[in-house]
Amino acid sequence: MLILALDTATDKGSLALMAADLLLGELTLPSQGTYLTRLLPGVQALLRDTGRELSDLGAIAVSRGPGNFTGLRIGLATAKVLAWSLGCPLVAVSTLEVLAAQFPCQAQPIGVLLDAKRGEVFWGLFQCQDDQPQALEGPCRLPVAALPPRLQPPMMLTGPGLQVYGDFLQDLIPPGISLAPAEMCFPRAATLARLARRCLAAGRTAAPEALVPTYLRPAL
Amino acid sequence: MLILALDTATDKGSLALMAADLLLGELTLPSQGTYLTRLLPGVQALLRDTGRELSDLGAIAVSRGPGNFTGLRIGLATAKVLAWSLGCPLVAVSTLEVLAAQFPCQAQPIGVLLDAKRGEVFWGLFQCQDDQPQALEGPCRLPVAALPPRLQPPMMLTGPGLQVYGDFLQDLIPPGISLAPAEMCFPRAATLARLARRCLAAGRTAAPEALVPTYLRPAL
Repeated sequence: MLILALDTATDKGSLALMAADLLLGELTLPSQGTYLTRLLPGVQALLRDTGRELSDLGAIAVSRGPGNFTGLRIGLATAKVLAWSLGCPLVAVSTLEVLAAQFPCQAQPIGVLLDAKRGEVFWGLFQCQDDQPQALEGPCRLPVAALPPRLQPPMMLTGPGLQVYGDFLQDLIPPGISLAPAEMCFPRAATLARLARRCLAAGRTAAPEALVPTYLRPAL
Repeated sequence: MLILALDTATDKGSLALMAADLLLGELTLPSQGTYLTRLLPGVQALLRDTGRELSDLGAIAVSRGPGNFTGLRIGLATAKVLAWSLGCPLVAVSTLEVLAAQFPCQAQPIGVLLDAKRGEVFWGLFQCQDDQPQALEGPCRLPVAALPPRLQPPMMLTGPGLQVYGDFLQDLIPPGISLAPAEMCFPRAATLARLARRCLAAGRTAAPEALVPTYLRPAL
């Protein structure tokens, strides 16, 4: 089954097309604030470059947040309408879970940080069972100041929030905590597609007309 | 410094543009056998989409193999001429090392498999020191039949060879060996760029006129 996966929850969007577990193509959208004009051309380019048609899609996977409000709304709107108009299943996956799943078989718990603006972060702590992250804590929204007591080694930290709050956290991160390499701190749509395949197999799909982002904050 | 990284060592090419450790854009080229026509347009698209000019590039990083002969030659030819014509440094990194570096802070040794055709594999075994893989064994070329005795748990296996030889290996992989998720079995140019930054800092650059791929086999 051909899955189109899209993640616009952070300022680094990602699109992927996968046939079962075979990655056909993937694209990072370097497009802070320009998803409305760049997401659809990105999907078109991905289909064209892989020689596929819109009608070939068998499922749509979308990253449901928490994350950037505008990005999430454009991503979800796109995914919902695609699934509805094509009549194919829609799967929504937590953005924090996608970020944790990029560290499969990691023995340490994985802490995921996203900037929630106004001095707050979205936070989730996961333990990987093979390549499937299980939530130990969160997802939740916290003041940045509430973070340091949670940073207990052994732990690996990842997520775009790491760059945003790197300076603040620098002296507060104890020894024994590993930081993910910067290029792995953003969600990959190919990893989202992997998690979505499991949801599909378990029948955990979303209704296009009802799906809303995980804001973890009263929406503006 | 702006680094353009390109990996065409497997049938899933990858291009990335990074400003220090900030990922500006990344592109998977789903282009088995079409690098000659798709690599240059890919580089152009990446520059255009990120609003950068060719003259902005500060270094070129290339995946030097082992891997697909034709892909390596096109990738290296492109990287060498770019570095030479722009007068900027060129860094070459082992493809096996890039694949291992996609599993940072992994406690288990990481075995990397690439198809070497004719019933052979390219093989390397690494241990990650933080996010930097250190070679424990290889790189070398082996008959596939020489692989099973090397698969001693704990170990994580990755690389495109895992899909190629999956059926053969299925019953020969002992318990305690983890398999990387399929979408992480191909080299990411963004990870190549991370390793290349270290080489640059250490002055380990390559001379464009002298650099050759790591074939690990008499070249055809």
